[in-house]
Amino acid sequence: MTVRKLFLLPGDGIGPEAMAEVRKIIAYMNSEMKAGFETDEGLVGGCAYDAHGAAISEDDMAKAMAADAVLFGAVGGPKWDAVPYDVRPEAGLLRLRKDLELFANLRPAICYPALASASSLKPELVEGLDILIVRELTGGVYFGEPKIITDLGNGQKRAIDTQVYDTYEIERIASVAFELARTRKNAVCSMEKRNVMKSGVLWNQVVTEVHKAKYPDVKLEHMLADAGGMQLVRNPKQFDVIVTDNLFGDMLSDVAAMLTGSLGMLPSASLGAPDAKTGKRKALYEPVHGSAPDIAGKGVANPIAMIASFAMCLRYSFNMIKEADTLEKAIANVLEKGIRTGDIMAEGCRQVGTSD
Amino acid sequence: MTVRKLFLLPGDGIGPEAMAEVRKIIAYMNSEMKAGFETDEGLVGGCAYDAHGAAISEDDMAKAMAADAVLFGAVGGPKWDAVPYDVRPEAGLLRLRKDLELFANLRPAICYPALASASSLKPELVEGLDILIVRELTGGVYFGEPKIITDLGNGQKRAIDTQVYDTYEIERIASVAFELARTRKNAVCSMEKRNVMKSGVLWNQVVTEVHKAKYPDVKLEHMLADAGGMQLVRNPKQFDVIVTDNLFGDMLSDVAAMLTGSLGMLPSASLGAPDAKTGKRKALYEPVHGSAPDIAGKGVANPIAMIASFAMCLRYSFNMIKEADTLEKAIANVLEKGIRTGDIMAEGCRQVGTSD
Ligand SMILES: CC(C)[C@H](C(=O)O)[C@@H](O)C(=O)O
Ligand SMILES: CC(C)[C@H](C(=O)O)[C@@H](O)C(=O)O
Repeated sequence: MTVRKLFLLPGDGIGPEAMAEVRKIIAYMNSEMKAGFETDEGLVGGCAYDAHGAAISEDDMAKAMAADAVLFGAVGGPKWDAVPYDVRPEAGLLRLRKDLELFANLRPAICYPALASASSLKPELVEGLDILIVRELTGGVYFGEPKIITDLGNGQKRAIDTQVYDTYEIERIASVAFELARTRKNAVCSMEKRNVMKSGVLWNQVVTEVHKAKYPDVKLEHMLADAGGMQLVRNPKQFDVIVTDNLFGDMLSDVAAMLTGSLGMLPSASLGAPDAKTGKRKALYEPVHGSAPDIAGKGVANPIAMIASFAMCLRYSFNMIKEADTLEKAIANVLEKGIRTGDIMAEGCRQVGTSD
Repeated sequence: MTVRKLFLLPGDGIGPEAMAEVRKIIAYMNSEMKAGFETDEGLVGGCAYDAHGAAISEDDMAKAMAADAVLFGAVGGPKWDAVPYDVRPEAGLLRLRKDLELFANLRPAICYPALASASSLKPELVEGLDILIVRELTGGVYFGEPKIITDLGNGQKRAIDTQVYDTYEIERIASVAFELARTRKNAVCSMEKRNVMKSGVLWNQVVTEVHKAKYPDVKLEHMLADAGGMQLVRNPKQFDVIVTDNLFGDMLSDVAAMLTGSLGMLPSASLGAPDAKTGKRKALYEPVHGSAPDIAGKGVANPIAMIASFAMCLRYSFNMIKEADTLEKAIANVLEKGIRTGDIMAEGCRQVGTSD
């Protein structure tokens, strides 16, 4: 029997509650479908800092490296607002992304028909929305050096962050975007600020070259990132796949997520390169919402984003396409039936808690 | 009689058409109100490149430096997409900002009542919207060095951009934001990514210190820039003044502009520090919309953003508050009467051209 190794990192805030629901699905799939999932669990973020003074322990890093896939909940909260920069909760997530080389972050922004009215946009602009944002995740200003604050004397400090992109980093993320576009509406929009940033100039060139050399069948468009943000608000359905760098991807995927009106619903996948021998790729799956400390522990959080992240895991890490489809169908069904957590509650629906 | 020196840089695309309408107002104010405007005019952007191979000539830079205020139209267009990086149209605008030390960019996002339905957001979310984005304009990743592309050999290139902020740069923009908040709803929201960027850490610290030392009466909130983008889409009316860095300000002000549904309506002001002796500050006024090459020369562009920019000029450069109010009132009146250019046309309104 196939063994499928999952490493669970529920993290802080509503992470553990949401993860508990996925654990039920894993147990069900093991008993009813002989799915062969083996799970282990660790700490990340504030809870890891409380336990051993780091945002993730070496031991847990090793387990994450050895797993077929990592399921990640959420990190952070006011409790850890004042901890030192290097061990802040986010550092755990950033280290996982970097050390596992999860360079491709897939963030679908999907508007479930049942929830179109929950968007702050006019329903006709978001109904049926289905955008995939492909965000570069291991480069750019997130990891470039120098990244320091120096004391200049005279009461003046200087803070420096460095955006760095090499050709190969842009090539591989562009390829992921073009490949995925072929399974969708076959259109990619690449976003950067080439009118201001040299990394935008290189980004634009490399994406254009990759397109020409390997994916001339895919429709490619370039947009300045600020104009892209505008267009997301004005007419989001014009997009299929958007490919962009780490920082613009952070901003744009959050704007796109909010368009759907259902932040508590949106999953993400962070993927590495396929191993040359085994074809396996390291992967981490994570809801787009954060740790929501204000509602943590109350049993009211929406677990759908975490469950949908597990569906992405079935799809991308285990090629269990049928099972992923079934799970996603189940989510849509629950919504159709008007069963809702508080965040997406609407008139005529029945309000339920996380575990319902 | 007071002499008020204006330097006009209409630029490319619809810039000249929009500027022509402001010229009429200047002429009217000179003849009817003895306003004493003296105007001179230069080239910037693509048209400057065509004329003398630079995005702005030394001669025009000198005139901009000597003027009381610069009125700027728009730059760029497909014609100049392939010109070298250093002389691309945007370089003219960036040089003006840098050399005139226009560190404070004020971008109001106002939703005119008559236009609330033009927004892609639900009207109740944007009706009466009145946000002021205060964007740092002479620092950050726009100007930090190194900013280069190097050839690493092996077909690999490396692009580097550098985000740099010093304490004094953050102090002065924070002060502008707090001062302006006092004339409005007295609330400032500061946005950065302190969870990822050292410049965000310093930004957060300095804004907090300036607040404590000089503006404890103003309500101050901090938000991560990605969450800020989300909140702008979810519930924009929660904001009064937003203060943020150059790059986040670029993205966030474009998103905010699009919320109003009336991009062709929005002005901006870029201000320097008051001169220690005269109290005068250098300033440039510019519509938020771009050069819109697709409709340039057709006489259909909306001149209101350019006219509203001139109203800001009256207010901030010449302290002509009554005149600025009158001009802004006139804009609102025209909209109330249903007189519209094509971009904001609605049922029951009368469509007119730029010069009408
Ligand atoms: C938690 C934080 C470091 C992270 C990021 O900025 O990448 C988050 O905003 C995200 O988008 O996953
Ligand atoms: C034209 C461009 C250089 C500019 C910028 O990025 O600042 C524009 O987008 C703006 O916001 O004024």
